[in-house]
Amino acid sequence: MPAGERGPTAIRGRLLWYVADPDTEGPAARRYLEDGLLVVERGLIRAVGPAGDLLPALPDGTPVSDHRPHLVVPGFIDAHIHYPQTQVVASYGAMLLDWLERYTFVEEQRFADPGHAAAGARFFLDELLRNGTTTASIYCTVHAGSAEALFAESERRDTRMIAGKVMMDRGAPPGLLDTAESGYRDTKALIARWHRRGRQLYAISPRFALTSSPAQLDATGRLVAEHPDCHLQTHISENLREIEAVAAAYPEERDYTAVYERFGLLGPRSLMGHCLHLSEDELRRFHAADAVAVFCPTSNTFLGSGLFDWGRIRDPRRPIRVAVATDIGGGTSYSMLRTMGEAYKVLHLQGQSLTPDAAFHAMTRGNAVALGLDGVIGSFEPGRECDAVVLDSRATPAAAHRMERARTIEEELFVLTTLGDDRSVAATYVMGEVAHRQ
Amino acid sequence: MPAGERGPTAIRGRLLWYVADPDTEGPAARRYLEDGLLVVERGLIRAVGPAGDLLPALPDGTPVSDHRPHLVVPGFIDAHIHYPQTQVVASYGAMLLDWLERYTFVEEQRFADPGHAAAGARFFLDELLRNGTTTASIYCTVHAGSAEALFAESERRDTRMIAGKVMMDRGAPPGLLDTAESGYRDTKALIARWHRRGRQLYAISPRFALTSSPAQLDATGRLVAEHPDCHLQTHISENLREIEAVAAAYPEERDYTAVYERFGLLGPRSLMGHCLHLSEDELRRFHAADAVAVFCPTSNTFLGSGLFDWGRIRDPRRPIRVAVATDIGGGTSYSMLRTMGEAYKVLHLQGQSLTPDAAFHAMTRGNAVALGLDGVIGSFEPGRECDAVVLDSRATPAAAHRMERARTIEEELFVLTTLGDDRSVAATYVMGEVAHRQ
Repeated sequence: MPAGERGPTAIRGRLLWYVADPDTEGPAARRYLEDGLLVVERGLIRAVGPAGDLLPALPDGTPVSDHRPHLVVPGFIDAHIHYPQTQVVASYGAMLLDWLERYTFVEEQRFADPGHAAAGARFFLDELLRNGTTTASIYCTVHAGSAEALFAESERRDTRMIAGKVMMDRGAPPGLLDTAESGYRDTKALIARWHRRGRQLYAISPRFALTSSPAQLDATGRLVAEHPDCHLQTHISENLREIEAVAAAYPEERDYTAVYERFGLLGPRSLMGHCLHLSEDELRRFHAADAVAVFCPTSNTFLGSGLFDWGRIRDPRRPIRVAVATDIGGGTSYSMLRTMGEAYKVLHLQGQSLTPDAAFHAMTRGNAVALGLDGVIGSFEPGRECDAVVLDSRATPAAAHRMERARTIEEELFVLTTLGDDRSVAATYVMGEVAHRQ
Repeated sequence: MPAGERGPTAIRGRLLWYVADPDTEGPAARRYLEDGLLVVERGLIRAVGPAGDLLPALPDGTPVSDHRPHLVVPGFIDAHIHYPQTQVVASYGAMLLDWLERYTFVEEQRFADPGHAAAGARFFLDELLRNGTTTASIYCTVHAGSAEALFAESERRDTRMIAGKVMMDRGAPPGLLDTAESGYRDTKALIARWHRRGRQLYAISPRFALTSSPAQLDATGRLVAEHPDCHLQTHISENLREIEAVAAAYPEERDYTAVYERFGLLGPRSLMGHCLHLSEDELRRFHAADAVAVFCPTSNTFLGSGLFDWGRIRDPRRPIRVAVATDIGGGTSYSMLRTMGEAYKVLHLQGQSLTPDAAFHAMTRGNAVALGLDGVIGSFEPGRECDAVVLDSRATPAAAHRMERARTIEEELFVLTTLGDDRSVAATYVMGEVAHRQ
């Protein structure tokens, strides 16, 4: 019986979510119910509260999935990931530009084959759900078919995904190039077909300034202007050689950010990975545009790109919104838990702290806010879509042993981001239905 | 039937080990047998070679454990780990000195109880073997009983472990202090009882200059002089505040290294964690003394201590020997695979490369050389003790998917250090016997 025709269901467990940013609001931003209940109807959260209060009011026979003693938190959100790079992960020795050429562009050419793209999309979404990620902002390849395959698979699972075909009209092998015109046209067609179809959303996706000509970035600006509710995702200021090459390719622009500004690509729906080497002036303009800096710790360290300076990025004089992400395949883990564990280290190396609350907020409500989707996902409030992850803090011997000494919820959250991985994900719910169970 | 009374046994698989340092000798340093056999008798390797050559010569009925298609490599060696810190791992927010005070010293006091120490030793050795680590250089607590418990448990398993009771006579809670005299006496007694008893080895273990008075370091120097074949393990130059505090505590010494030199603690059996901020002059003296710098990547990043500059440490004008280690509980993983994955990132952030061969060499033969045990463990040569790890490169969906595209053994090794963890360890052998099987 399809969910739409059924009565309510319920998920019981130790519920934890955020209603504000713990960096500014402190622990009051967190909601925690030791024995909580999520009541779900037609995929949406109808009620949330103590199980003792809500259970008596449920219709007789309402199915209740009891996950105690596990934590139940909103589904993780990954703000930057490349689905055609699941076989690029763990490619040795290169930094960004060589890594693209030696590994990534080789693998991405295979996605011209619709069968390969379909199989890749299946593996990719299986792996996201196994890791508790229910929403991601996804780069496909240049081939329109790669985006078709991803959206079709996501629609089948009813997951809320944001994706777009990459636009590249130079700086890559011929099999990976579109043109300013075809990139524009294919993107328009994909937006018409997929944007807001069910839970699917489109992200206009020029790869970055080196692989798009000014003509293509100009066409991209038209797409953004014509579809202001689509996201725009691209790369900026990841690697020092990349930055030099962009300066050489766009000698008339004063800096990297100016390239995107010139074509109208810097705005509140712009998801900009990786913002490692931006100047103070560029940061001011990011703030003014309300653009989002996307922090991908395992990728930044794996590719030797640099350390994301979150403290500087969120300088209260001109704060910039931050999203967090895995960046598979430059990143090394699909797990947002491991991603936040690495984020902690990246910040600590710079004398900064990432609290357990800040980490859990970032991968749930924080990313939802950054994506402009906090009215829809990222927290457990009535009316939100019910995507959730069930977390077992004792999933490995090392974690179970450590948890014997954990006294507070903050400690438990920190154990999860420091020692946790896909094994910590006992189950994943999409629209109130089990989409993965260990 | 005890192993000593039995005939030979054999381990079959894709055997891989090193006979030299791949950093200087290149791929010729690696031995690889696609279908290899290790013949074991009384725990020692009697023969190693292609299975096709060796199988016909085995006595009828010789038990052969066939691990194909898995890799079989020498047991991993962890050159710096604290067994009383398995419940300190993942403690939030502090750098070294605060971290010791807020978390570590609290947990270590519990090891005054022999029952707690015995249970801790069991968990610890289980976890090492689950991760493929068959030898480690281990810090116990200040309590002689903590070392007793560890050695007793290691002897029961016949693992080759190096361990020592920590010496601290100041800078810690009263329950964790010995005195110059009692530290000397207890260490002497432990050496007499455990050093070279079966496979056990003793490491003289003054924690570091801030927790030992000059009188205790002087007594430590006597221990080193009286027991030149014991290891000496301590900490140096991990954290900038620690370095300042040592300068204040030893104002008469020109630098941190000079404190240990003054008491005769810097020599070829000295295992010095973490060497992050040594001056060029100190590095020259490390080279002259042939001391070992111990690199603990997950600890250095987790505690925000800094990035180990391997390139500088091994400067060919005054190369210093390096060992690699987890440093649980400052470190975040028991897995030497994950440790080398993090080492790769730490080096890449500094524009350096850690090749897959260098990583696998480091955690096997490289660490054996650094510990002066390369005649005994760390490679598959006849006469060596047969400690081995069976590695499944496809242990998780992400790794299996990535391995579909791996073409070379180097790629496979890199996938193991980038995506692998305890799940990659299909089995662990100690002295030719299965000590862990997944």
